[in-house]
Amino acid sequence: MDAQLDTLIRRLARLPGLGPRSARRAVLHLLQNRETLMLPLADDLGQVARAVRNCADCGNLDTGDTCRLCRDPQRDRQVICVVEDVGDLWAMERAAAFRGLYHILGGTLSAIDGRGPAELNIERLVSRAADGVSEVILALPATVEGQTTAHYLHERLSSLPLEVTRLAHGVPVGGELDFLDDGTLAQALKARSRIGGD
Amino acid sequence: MDAQLDTLIRRLARLPGLGPRSARRAVLHLLQNRETLMLPLADDLGQVARAVRNCADCGNLDTGDTCRLCRDPQRDRQVICVVEDVGDLWAMERAAAFRGLYHILGGTLSAIDGRGPAELNIERLVSRAADGVSEVILALPATVEGQTTAHYLHERLSSLPLEVTRLAHGVPVGGELDFLDDGTLAQALKARSRIGGD
Repeated sequence: MDAQLDTLIRRLARLPGLGPRSARRAVLHLLQNRETLMLPLADDLGQVARAVRNCADCGNLDTGDTCRLCRDPQRDRQVICVVEDVGDLWAMERAAAFRGLYHILGGTLSAIDGRGPAELNIERLVSRAADGVSEVILALPATVEGQTTAHYLHERLSSLPLEVTRLAHGVPVGGELDFLDDGTLAQALKARSRIGGD
Repeated sequence: MDAQLDTLIRRLARLPGLGPRSARRAVLHLLQNRETLMLPLADDLGQVARAVRNCADCGNLDTGDTCRLCRDPQRDRQVICVVEDVGDLWAMERAAAFRGLYHILGGTLSAIDGRGPAELNIERLVSRAADGVSEVILALPATVEGQTTAHYLHERLSSLPLEVTRLAHGVPVGGELDFLDDGTLAQALKARSRIGGD
């Protein structure tokens, strides 16, 4: 195969979700759509790589110094939702149920991976939270590391006059009880609510 | 989400094998590897889109006017292997069992899709085959359309002093009989060979 083509396929195959086979298919598809897809994609990649940076306030990815969520005057500045990474922020935004601001930690505490508090974006969270915030929602993964991090953050924020909350555990919408793990089922039972209530 | 980021994700999601979710993951991965992956990939895409063309002889994709396979003096010019598209050529080359030249048809005859002989790269095949070729191997898909195309090509080449052959049907290497369709099994039985023979 042509060396340039081969390099392109190898680079594409490094993307998560693509392997060598799908990278080859993707390149053939791109070559069949050079003007409408391949060249625009090349431009997009270059432009985004050069323009996108992390928001100085929350850490979100954006082409401005401050992201569009932090700039939005409609968003409630008294509530901060703490997420592990930008992917989780996007997931929250797709759910369209939260109208406050975000804070991206950049990971979770992990003894195994040697990630301590200094590696995470925690000091900035504490100073933001001290600035008139009434609630910090910890939307961290329901893993051991996520929960360790939530516990640590709760302690760090405990001296401030605000509420620290976490997402509810329970049965996923559309989920079958039979396929749920025992821990989730136990949590869902404990946090059961009255039908007709809120 | 930032508009530029959103455009990039939408474009990536149009690649076969990627959907919106994996395109988002891919973009986050790219942004974490801007210098080592994202910018090089942008350059690759632009360069390949501009440089790669179809070989004037066989139709293969290459940065030269004639592809590296057609230029290779080691390849047997008396045998041409006809494939549907470049992906099939790459698959044959990976198998590393063929040392002749290729001819890319650019599709198969299809009454449903309105693809007749004029839409395929057939005239060039006939003129290449007339130029000292001793065998044309039809490596076309084992579908109705592939076999219709093979039948048509066989007729078109019948006046030339050469052999027209097709790939063997049979049990895939590593394949379980239980999971094979009846047609393949019947073909494999019919074409059985003596153990210890060739």
